Amino acid sequence: MAPHAETTPTHTSYGDNAVRKLLKEERKESQAVSNLSPEHDLVLRTFRLLIADLCQQFNGGHPGGAIGMAAIGVALWKYVMRYAPHTPDFFNRDRFVLSNGHTCLFQYTWLHLTGYKAMTMDQLKSYHSDRYDALCPGHPEIEHEGIEVTTGPLGQGIANAVGMAIAEKKLSAEFNQNDFPIVSNHIWCMIGDACLQEGVALEAISLAGHLKLNNLTVIYDNNQVTCDGTVDITNTEDVNAKMRACGWEVVDVEDGCFDIEAIVKALNASKADRSLKPTFINVRTIIGLGSAVAGKAVAHGAAFGTSDVGKMKEEYGFDPEEHFVIPDQVRNFFADIPARGQKLVEDWEELLSSYSKTHPDLATRFKKRLAGEIVEDWQSLIPKTFPEKATASRASSGLVFNPIAEASSSFLVGTADLTPSVNMKWKDMEIFQGPGRSPGSYNGRYLHYGIREHGMVAIANGIAAYSPNMLIPLTSSFFMFYLYAAPAVRMGALQHLQVIHAATHDSIGMGEDGPTHQPLEIAALFRAMPNLLYIRPGDSEETAGAWTVAIQAKKRPSIISTSRHAIPQLTGSTKREGVARGAYVLVEREEADLTLVGVGAELSLAVEAGKKLEEEKGLKVRVVSFPCQRLFDEQSLEYRRSVLRRDAKRPIVVVEPYVSTGWEKYANAAVSMGQERFGQSLPGKKAYEYFGFTVHGVMEKVGMYLDLLKQDPEVREEFVQLSEVEGKRKVLAT
Amino acid sequence: MAPHAETTPTHTSYGDNAVRKLLKEERKESQAVSNLSPEHDLVLRTFRLLIADLCQQFNGGHPGGAIGMAAIGVALWKYVMRYAPHTPDFFNRDRFVLSNGHTCLFQYTWLHLTGYKAMTMDQLKSYHSDRYDALCPGHPEIEHEGIEVTTGPLGQGIANAVGMAIAEKKLSAEFNQNDFPIVSNHIWCMIGDACLQEGVALEAISLAGHLKLNNLTVIYDNNQVTCDGTVDITNTEDVNAKMRACGWEVVDVEDGCFDIEAIVKALNASKADRSLKPTFINVRTIIGLGSAVAGKAVAHGAAFGTSDVGKMKEEYGFDPEEHFVIPDQVRNFFADIPARGQKLVEDWEELLSSYSKTHPDLATRFKKRLAGEIVEDWQSLIPKTFPEKATASRASSGLVFNPIAEASSSFLVGTADLTPSVNMKWKDMEIFQGPGRSPGSYNGRYLHYGIREHGMVAIANGIAAYSPNMLIPLTSSFFMFYLYAAPAVRMGALQHLQVIHAATHDSIGMGEDGPTHQPLEIAALFRAMPNLLYIRPGDSEETAGAWTVAIQAKKRPSIISTSRHAIPQLTGSTKREGVARGAYVLVEREEADLTLVGVGAELSLAVEAGKKLEEEKGLKVRVVSFPCQRLFDEQSLEYRRSVLRRDAKRPIVVVEPYVSTGWEKYANAAVSMGQERFGQSLPGKKAYEYFGFTVHGVMEKVGMYLDLLKQDPEVREEFVQLSEVEGKRKVLAT
Repeated sequence: MAPHAETTPTHTSYGDNAVRKLLKEERKESQAVSNLSPEHDLVLRTFRLLIADLCQQFNGGHPGGAIGMAAIGVALWKYVMRYAPHTPDFFNRDRFVLSNGHTCLFQYTWLHLTGYKAMTMDQLKSYHSDRYDALCPGHPEIEHEGIEVTTGPLGQGIANAVGMAIAEKKLSAEFNQNDFPIVSNHIWCMIGDACLQEGVALEAISLAGHLKLNNLTVIYDNNQVTCDGTVDITNTEDVNAKMRACGWEVVDVEDGCFDIEAIVKALNASKADRSLKPTFINVRTIIGLGSAVAGKAVAHGAAFGTSDVGKMKEEYGFDPEEHFVIPDQVRNFFADIPARGQKLVEDWEELLSSYSKTHPDLATRFKKRLAGEIVEDWQSLIPKTFPEKATASRASSGLVFNPIAEASSSFLVGTADLTPSVNMKWKDMEIFQGPGRSPGSYNGRYLHYGIREHGMVAIANGIAAYSPNMLIPLTSSFFMFYLYAAPAVRMGALQHLQVIHAATHDSIGMGEDGPTHQPLEIAALFRAMPNLLYIRPGDSEETAGAWTVAIQAKKRPSIISTSRHAIPQLTGSTKREGVARGAYVLVEREEADLTLVGVGAELSLAVEAGKKLEEEKGLKVRVVSFPCQRLFDEQSLEYRRSVLRRDAKRPIVVVEPYVSTGWEKYANAAVSMGQERFGQSLPGKKAYEYFGFTVHGVMEKVGMYLDLLKQDPEVREEFVQLSEVEGKRKVLAT
Repeated sequence: MAPHAETTPTHTSYGDNAVRKLLKEERKESQAVSNLSPEHDLVLRTFRLLIADLCQQFNGGHPGGAIGMAAIGVALWKYVMRYAPHTPDFFNRDRFVLSNGHTCLFQYTWLHLTGYKAMTMDQLKSYHSDRYDALCPGHPEIEHEGIEVTTGPLGQGIANAVGMAIAEKKLSAEFNQNDFPIVSNHIWCMIGDACLQEGVALEAISLAGHLKLNNLTVIYDNNQVTCDGTVDITNTEDVNAKMRACGWEVVDVEDGCFDIEAIVKALNASKADRSLKPTFINVRTIIGLGSAVAGKAVAHGAAFGTSDVGKMKEEYGFDPEEHFVIPDQVRNFFADIPARGQKLVEDWEELLSSYSKTHPDLATRFKKRLAGEIVEDWQSLIPKTFPEKATASRASSGLVFNPIAEASSSFLVGTADLTPSVNMKWKDMEIFQGPGRSPGSYNGRYLHYGIREHGMVAIANGIAAYSPNMLIPLTSSFFMFYLYAAPAVRMGALQHLQVIHAATHDSIGMGEDGPTHQPLEIAALFRAMPNLLYIRPGDSEETAGAWTVAIQAKKRPSIISTSRHAIPQLTGSTKREGVARGAYVLVEREEADLTLVGVGAELSLAVEAGKKLEEEKGLKVRVVSFPCQRLFDEQSLEYRRSVLRRDAKRPIVVVEPYVSTGWEKYANAAVSMGQERFGQSLPGKKAYEYFGFTVHGVMEKVGMYLDLLKQDPEVREEFVQLSEVEGKRKVLAT
């Protein structure tokens, strides 16, 4: 059977029966219009035509979903959500997350209608335009007024919303007192059919149910259509039953296109919900309602065409020749909202003011936290010195950070089920846990995310975005598994959110876990990712430096990448400060023959190899410690040159058992893993030996490189990978 | 409350009540031992002690899970699975996937006991050893006899198993005839509590239910313990209800530690299942049963200690001083298995032989496919020429590949809900779909994976691993969303599996989708990933070359990375062949001033800028096309030098709107996106302009670079990023 033969080239829907069923429902629902108040009817028609016009003007965009969700929007923005268009960042506002971010026009248009000042009609028309200053990009962006998080990559938004609900619970538990609900907002999240298929969303859904986040309402725009056609070509699960199994309250709304009253009722009930469950409202809608492609996949991601938009206007009683029409009645319908919002702001400020009198200490702490301050003198909590013995840098991380975590309630520490491995727990810590579960409470600051790495980081982004720097989420797992979470790490970097990722078991020292766990090429991604600090500290002092940098980085996430195995403490008095500059000279030699660059767990190896090369080969060897490429790139050209001291006579060789990608910018050669193979399951020490990461191995490879330079001058121009594979040495010039 | 205060430092379990409940159950279950046949009892005791000894010898490893699953193992390897230890790769064997790969000793020990020749006791003891030739690495590896897929990263294995079940359904539908079930194997997959939390698993579970894969049985080792303690600290969902909601048959086994009979019954029922559903067998077990840490998290990932192992032996009636003891009765218990397996092999070969007589054409096709052959002359199906007009390379991909997909049943093409965007559909294609759903059937070769990118690629790995090169899975999505799938792309590369990923919307030409969709730094990861080909073709001819390479790459996956927007066709007769060498000279100049490297969608920009630099600046400009770094690295040094022609007087500048990471190895400077920011939501053409990727912009930046080289000779040694941010030009030497 040839499904495409039945459809026109531009209409790629499958499951025509399902579509026919939808359209039949649409007709039925259209009759329901008569039950609508004329005012609501006009608002819905106006909104839908606005979306159609906004897409048509650029002949692109995503009209269908936004049009289908119109009635949900009226319910939220007119009747349910607490927000203040003229004080958009008012702390106690409800948070709204559009997880199906491609329907961004939905949100932009409500921002316009409800009186957000920046969202003028002129700006609204900037959707898909070539304006550099547009407030209406193709997906909502956190930088803009009224947008809580950047969404678009599917599944991220709902996980962010779970994070916001966690943040609200945590801050409520910490600050609210009898009669003083100063933290009391609700989290609303729109999702589509797609988000419910994404693993990251499913992870977050499961955790939200477990944590009993009844301050979270997820509204499912159930239009049963995605790019490829009707959902039933790929997903036929019983979504309500699945959500219930995950611990959610589930409510159905049958006529989501018009029945504003039913939606309002469901939304309000979810907010008042005393069932200690998050709520999932399954709202039946029709994508592209009113257009000729209603209920079809093609309504999802393309403008309807001038003729169809014209017909829609005629049917809706509008003039087909007029565009972007907002009747006065519609303007008036939303006219009360800014003032209503300001009342909320004033009431809350009054509440905070009384709270300050009754609970002055808490109020002071609240205000400091709101300003992003963490406990004063946090830097003094970091040990001044560390044990001299060799220490795994994951253990150093604990020594550095746990006193801060213990003293400061700014941090919400979590792990993807690796508490025994990551060393991020502290004495007497309380678990973040829902009511009725023990041990723990919502005032806990240690969160067991479960084996849900991607969900963990996406949730952490939501915690961070809730009120930036008020709670600083910390995630932890093996470095390898940040690849599971990479899309969310990226979203954190894109949104300038402070999230700290404690990534342990880096390099090849985790040994017998084998190639599946040896993250040879993963650092290349995170070093390339804009606005992210990937830091590999080389001993306890450098680990102190790494945490200092990460805690001070208010506008970007950091990955602190540490070893499973013990690494020696090195001499050098500026190591802690050196980290902040990305790289620094650890061993200087005036007339050097060579600069060795050591990184993280292999810094000591570079130092030792340098010493031996001096002792045994009579070479003068500089050693540079290089924990963070991005921080180094941000230094002045003068500083960078003083560290690297490039010179044709003094090659720079980096020592790191990763693929060398990213080091070619700084070095002439790398003692690296090459790029031909993954790792090997061997005990850590043996894995280092197997791949030639021993003092002897490094010396030998450096020697080979120096010989090669003499023999073949062209090599000077090339980057040389010095790797050892299956016991055979390799020199690879590239 | 301080949970840790209650426990000893090494016992990090929470939820002691839950543990007590477990132990109570254990006692109850221990009484059930008397119902066991003495033979089964001895096998279980022997197996459990073997695991304890194998971990104890190296004082590490993961004993608890393997010990808890012992009875499941007996049921599978003795009574249910069809396999042939002496012909391990026998085509019609059942496939077994250990998704909880850290319990690998479980599988290794059964391989030993059932007579796999390579798995000697000596090899079995190689677990966690420093032997380079060990067959027992820390996680199962596909290279070794009896292992179907490499597992370890949680959630991957179950998705692989779904892929294997899809492969079996597809090949059954294609080849089986009345009385000739030549493809008739079952897929068995063990999972633990962790896999059920991972998003990739949840995606695969949902799709498996939809596709009605009743050839798949997932056995859940429900021990309710993970690294952090009891599962109920982070997951309290009703897993059975969730699985049912996803379309699975669910069966409970209460006493999974001893009740071999009940397990066998459940396994056999799942295989005979006519309900058209995959089966989920929820088997209640106790981690580390018999040891002092039974039911505790610490049983998961550490040896029990000599004393505990000794006590266990005493209780089990073994001599505490003896190690690795396998009584004769246990050897005898499994002694029939190799012969039984050979009988299966012979029967199947006989069946195939009769099939060859009755259905000679099909049999010929089957054998060819089994040998990894695709349709003959597939290369001749690729158009000899392409339209001269500018064509999006995603469209070129369709022109190149769709005729092959149409003609050859070797390919199982799929998409993560981007059929209208990726151009991988062909005329009259049939959808791969379960019975009772339409359109489509199990003989379909186009698979709607849903919006499940990670699941898609992990499933594709399973399809590829089922019988390598017999079915070649093709996945498709936007390039950005391969970051969601990156852990699975990695597993494909690690396992040398041929999977082709058609990644569209690369570079910044997708424009208004904005920074969430502009994959600036993603290529850095995939270029660094060993054994993966990341190929960016520059026009239709190069796209033909890219597909040719990917189809010929029998032992590695490829990403063919294409543009959303139209790009010009270039002159040059060796472009198709050039791709296979990774890079080649497109425009040669003898006394050149400059080499411009063009990549993928921006190759034409490099060519145009080169022309203009010659016309307007009097420079002689070589142009190199560089679609694939890995293929280039594999060429001879001579070839590589002939392409790059490095020379102090002739700088090499690469043009690509990604971060420059990875290019520093080949070039002196890059017209790139820098590494300071993500992209910008603008229509594609405007995005190119905004970031200076125009002929004029490239010329200007190259000019700046040449000036800089003259002014500051030290720059010669540095890699220079030429980027344009917020309208301000930047030159960044690093």
